[in-house]
Amino acid sequence: MGQTLLRLCREEGSGCQAVAAVARTVVNRVVDGVPYFTASELARVPAFDVAIDFSLPDGFDAVLALCRARGAALVSGTTGLNAAQQAALDAAASAIPVVWASNFSLGVAVLHALVERAAAMLPGWACDIVEAHHVHKRDAPSGTALTLGAAAQAGGADPRYASIRAGDIIGEHLVQFTGTGERIELVHRASNRDIFARGALHAAQRLHGRPPGRYRLGELL
Amino acid sequence: MGQTLLRLCREEGSGCQAVAAVARTVVNRVVDGVPYFTASELARVPAFDVAIDFSLPDGFDAVLALCRARGAALVSGTTGLNAAQQAALDAAASAIPVVWASNFSLGVAVLHALVERAAAMLPGWACDIVEAHHVHKRDAPSGTALTLGAAAQAGGADPRYASIRAGDIIGEHLVQFTGTGERIELVHRASNRDIFARGALHAAQRLHGRPPGRYRLGELL
Amino acid sequence: MGQTLLRLCREEGSGCQAVAAVARTVVNRVVDGVPYFTASELARVPAFDVAIDFSLPDGFDAVLALCRARGAALVSGTTGLNAAQQAALDAAASAIPVVWASNFSLGVAVLHALVERAAAMLPGWACDIVEAHHVHKRDAPSGTALTLGAAAQAGGADPRYASIRAGDIIGEHLVQFTGTGERIELVHRASNRDIFARGALHAAQRLHGRPPGRYRLGELL
Amino acid sequence: MGQTLLRLCREEGSGCQAVAAVARTVVNRVVDGVPYFTASELARVPAFDVAIDFSLPDGFDAVLALCRARGAALVSGTTGLNAAQQAALDAAASAIPVVWASNFSLGVAVLHALVERAAAMLPGWACDIVEAHHVHKRDAPSGTALTLGAAAQAGGADPRYASIRAGDIIGEHLVQFTGTGERIELVHRASNRDIFARGALHAAQRLHGRPPGRYRLGELL
Repeated sequence: MGQTLLRLCREEGSGCQAVAAVARTVVNRVVDGVPYFTASELARVPAFDVAIDFSLPDGFDAVLALCRARGAALVSGTTGLNAAQQAALDAAASAIPVVWASNFSLGVAVLHALVERAAAMLPGWACDIVEAHHVHKRDAPSGTALTLGAAAQAGGADPRYASIRAGDIIGEHLVQFTGTGERIELVHRASNRDIFARGALHAAQRLHGRPPGRYRLGELL
Repeated sequence: MGQTLLRLCREEGSGCQAVAAVARTVVNRVVDGVPYFTASELARVPAFDVAIDFSLPDGFDAVLALCRARGAALVSGTTGLNAAQQAALDAAASAIPVVWASNFSLGVAVLHALVERAAAMLPGWACDIVEAHHVHKRDAPSGTALTLGAAAQAGGADPRYASIRAGDIIGEHLVQFTGTGERIELVHRASNRDIFARGALHAAQRLHGRPPGRYRLGELL
Repeated sequence: MGQTLLRLCREEGSGCQAVAAVARTVVNRVVDGVPYFTASELARVPAFDVAIDFSLPDGFDAVLALCRARGAALVSGTTGLNAAQQAALDAAASAIPVVWASNFSLGVAVLHALVERAAAMLPGWACDIVEAHHVHKRDAPSGTALTLGAAAQAGGADPRYASIRAGDIIGEHLVQFTGTGERIELVHRASNRDIFARGALHAAQRLHGRPPGRYRLGELL
Repeated sequence: MGQTLLRLCREEGSGCQAVAAVARTVVNRVVDGVPYFTASELARVPAFDVAIDFSLPDGFDAVLALCRARGAALVSGTTGLNAAQQAALDAAASAIPVVWASNFSLGVAVLHALVERAAAMLPGWACDIVEAHHVHKRDAPSGTALTLGAAAQAGGADPRYASIRAGDIIGEHLVQFTGTGERIELVHRASNRDIFARGALHAAQRLHGRPPGRYRLGELL
């Protein structure tokens, strides 16, 4: 994910500039003009506007502390945060703008909003969520399916789930609302993993300059 | 459509009661307990809360005048109204609650709202609308596709259209938003023509008791 | 089903003529020109070419015996036949042409053939079957899904199943073959229950005049 | 395409070995153990079983001559061959096994076979083909859609076409057969361009050792 973010930043018209990269181990101190740092060297990271964090829970606290110390925004897609870390994120939101999401695809964020609205407008309709992913994905339903299901529940629906694990499918989600004599199908298809990095960069650009607070990805579109 | 409306009103739990029917020609004065009237006998129609009008443009003016005279609400799905009739509908809305739509399916009304929102949240994504109907439908794209396209345009998209005319398909609409590496598909499938009458009855129930005004179907869900 | 068959026979250009109907109870001896008989009156049924049987297992033996006695063909969609009845059907096939199927939709019969062929041509691809039916259908996966799965297995695939029960969906079946970097989806959608009766009439027309034998629905297309 | 073929040959279990590469310009004489040659050096290419040719029409004649001279098989996906070149390919087929196709995806080859069969089994059903590709694709309908349409026509159908050009869609084809009350949808989705190279390698393995002749891709599955 880090390499993808750096590659997309280098694309012409990206609107972003990578000023530093943080990696578990650092072989070359500078790659393509970007200085690299290990987690123990965070204090030496140069000035930045937004940190994008797709790491593991054990590195999260230090990244959050760095952002607070620098007054910078934080975009985090690190999954598996514990309750204390989520609370620390909420606390930090009083000082800096932050956004956390399990899926940074813009399309999924939009689908999330559409599902909640559809559920609210279609009381009494059945709601079924079918997701398909590659055979290496172990959890089922997917985290994104569960998040979509939560959106449907927020709108009053009672979703059921089905999962397909086949081939190298990157990720597809269908949320189907069935009434009498008609139905609505809301589908998201991911065909390239870059979309997750693109979404994080997009969120970073929209988060920069906002007042402190914990934002939802949907608000930053 | 009139017969379907009357049948659905008779269903247990419909929440509606048919107090009169207006038909081009009247053979039996009372059918299933409902008195029938011709267009020239509108003045004799008993008291009612809401008129549901799925007729032709040449009968529309009299129905609208009746609703104003009685202070009743009007649900109209009559297509082909001219500019003067639309203006008369707007004028009547200062005195009574009215709703007009080209498609009374609840699902299409919801899709309409979702499409506008998706378009607004996905600037720069391509928008394609594919609709399929039975071979007897002559106009293409369908009126509903054009309405969905208008919703997409209201959200900032620039939709293109494709039409399929095959078999006895009642009506299907796909609105597809395509980005880079991902896409969203929003689909409505009608499998029974009753949904159009059900939608009109639903709208009638929600319109009854509202203040005067011209409502959009989406607002009455 | 019987009423639907009689209605379709009356359609212009149906190519079929109903010469008798057999019903559990008979109120009117002749309806729309067709004489009615009870199961105990089978011997009095006038001459016919093909019997179409969508009844219950306890009436099956008498219908089969009648066809053998008359040298007529038999189209049967009666489900729940026991092993002895299936054996009796095989035995009768030495004297008369017979066809039995759990689903007389032409489309499903075609899908059956396509699935077997696709499975044989796509060794190593994953095979998933998703079926959707109305909420009143209790068995899952549907009998048709299992039949399609058997076709996939005959082609060498190892299908997995998912079922959706929602609204009033008449019946939809998706058979998906997923490889690396590509996939094939084979879908059947039923939108009108008439197709099952139409398929039986179609089979009857194709079965009439054939040599004795037990035919598969696919062979009669 | 050449680089993709070489990469896939290096994959463990590919069953293929690249013994030479032919390129327009050659910078390094040996890359990853594979010797490179220009078009003017074909005579020096070492012994091989099958040539895989995805070049331009002006290089085709020399490749074909090389295969004939060596008694090797030829897999060609070069598009834009003129009538004389197609005739030369036919003539060569008396001496060596050859296969030419506009699309080497296994899935599309399977879809081709399924479409022809479905069309033959569904006389009188409408046939619609909808294809979607990235915005850089200029021709519409796609060559693959036209090939699928030819398969449908071979089965007796009369296909109509619709095209979508949006985003970076690699390639999707829907062939829909619509009857009365039911329909069948046959879909192929490509999610990775590797499938075209994989199909060519697969064809090469199946072509090797066959008697001379011009094979269809479908026969080699």
